[in-house]
Order: sequence, then structure tokens, then C-alpha cells
Amino acid sequence: MQIKPIGIIHSPFNESAGTPIQSGMTAGTEGTVEIFEEYKPGLKDIDGFERIWLMYWFNRASLPKLLVKPYLDTHERGLFATRAPARPNPIGISPVRLIEVTGNILRVTDIDILDGTPLLDIKPYAPYFDCFEVKRSGWLDMVKKSHPVADNRFENSRIRKNI
Amino acid sequence: MQIKPIGIIHSPFNESAGTPIQSGMTAGTEGTVEIFEEYKPGLKDIDGFERIWLMYWFNRASLPKLLVKPYLDTHERGLFATRAPARPNPIGISPVRLIEVTGNILRVTDIDILDGTPLLDIKPYAPYFDCFEVKRSGWLDMVKKSHPVADNRFENSRIRKNI
Repeated sequence: MQIKPIGIIHSPFNESAGTPIQSGMTAGTEGTVEIFEEYKPGLKDIDGFERIWLMYWFNRASLPKLLVKPYLDTHERGLFATRAPARPNPIGISPVRLIEVTGNILRVTDIDILDGTPLLDIKPYAPYFDCFEVKRSGWLDMVKKSHPVADNRFENSRIRKNI
Repeated sequence: MQIKPIGIIHSPFNESAGTPIQSGMTAGTEGTVEIFEEYKPGLKDIDGFERIWLMYWFNRASLPKLLVKPYLDTHERGLFATRAPARPNPIGISPVRLIEVTGNILRVTDIDILDGTPLLDIKPYAPYFDCFEVKRSGWLDMVKKSHPVADNRFENSRIRKNI
């Protein structure tokens, strides 16, 4: 199964260390999403949405680890119970806020993504599809949400092309 | 960029027609997610989460269309303003409810995915990461949410291996 970039994400973050770990913890950091010209017609109507999901390739993630210590915790957890980038298929999703669309450029805030990250998809964010009340959020219920930026523990100096 | 399945999703749905279009509209349809043995250690701690994101390959989606008429609407919309499966990178996300973990099998409900769909990733669902209030949800604000199942408009008889 092959995938290819449909654009590039630009942000102020050049390495994992210091990058916010989730959109909700960025305090509004701004970035831009450049969609390649051939996909521009697919952006019609996107400006009606306040938030959008960016789906992207963790091209600087280290190789998959099935047990990881997440940024927010001091215990080792199963990879699939975390949002760590060191995954078998290194694909991330971020619900960023859409500010403005100009041609093939989207201006967004709440970005938690490294500069130069390959974009794979954009989907509209809708509470109707994406928001659910839950009573249990696993280990996340037991930790303080006091660690808003990443370090380099999941970063690799080699660009990751595949699994 | 290459990806590969880490498991298979099993559901009662054998074709798009009649399949719920989103997790929130399934009224609790049950399915199972089989993780390949080699990835089983990554499931540690997942049972603490009430919901999980399944990320999967739309292997029966038709080729990408940049303008589509979504199931919920009668107007043509830009693909990236919809959740239609006919995407340049045919990857879907569904926030299903996790009922039980037995070895490498997850029993889930609220499933809106075709039987036999290749699983690419599992991520924990957490309102802290994934739930945002928004004032605007584009064209979705203007339609009745009265069309809970799909038809075959985005289905292809050939299994889709790449883009």
C-alpha cells in the first residue's frame, strides 16, 4: 500500500524538543499548510469549517517501539494506548484551527507539527462526527496535564520513508 | 512512502450500501479488530480507554475525486471538506467504542467500517486531545442529519492497493 504527500506543512518547529505535544496545548501557534496545485479543487467549501483534521507522515519519527514512555507519563505504556509518533505506520492526526484560505494555502493555528512535514489528507472537523463524552481515558486520567511540549525521545536524524 | 496492515477489521458490513456513515450514527453495531501477533505488546494499557481511534485503509474506495456529493448533502463539495473515502490517500479514522480486549482481539461497537478492512493504526481517544467546541461546521450546519447509512457511490469493485 503506497501513499504520497498532497502538500507540505510549515510551522515554527524545527525539532521535536519544544514542540507542543497536542493541538489543544499550543496556545495558538500559527502555521501554514500548502496543498499541491493539482489538489486545490478539493479545498472548495473547506473555509466553512472552524477546525480541520490534518493527517500527516511523521517523517522524523524513530522506528516503531511497541512500549513507550509518553511525554505526559513516567510509566511505560503500550504504543497503541499513546499518541507517540514511533508507530508501525507513522501517521499523525491533528485537529487544528483554520483561520484563512488563500488559493492553495491554509493559514492555521493550534499547530503541533514539525516544519516540512508531508501532508497526507485534510478532513473537516465536526463535533457531530468527532466529539464523544467518555468516562474513562486510561492512564491519561491519572497524570497531570503539565507537560505541554515534546523532547527528542521519538526523533530520528534520518528521514523516515517507510516502515 | 509505504504502509502495511497491522491487523484486520471485522464487521457485519459487506458493502458500502447500508453501512453507517459515521461511528456516531451506528446505534451500537458490533465488530472486532484483530491485531497481528507481532504488534500485540503495543495493546498494553489500551483497555483503560472507553473509545479508540481506528485508522484504516479504504481498500474498496473508488479512485480520488476532488469534488464529491457527500451522503448527507445534495450539493457537490470539495473532497477535503467531506469525509468521503475516495481520497488521494484513502485512509479513514473512526472513533469506535472499546468493549473488551482478549489477547490480540478487540471487541468494539459503533463501527462504521467494511468487513475485511486493513487496519493501519490504533490511537487512544481522549476528549482532552480530540474534543473541541466549534461555532461553524461548514455545509454540515445546513443539512439534516437524516441519512445514517451509505450507498455505493464511492465503492469500487477492485481492491484499492495504492493511489
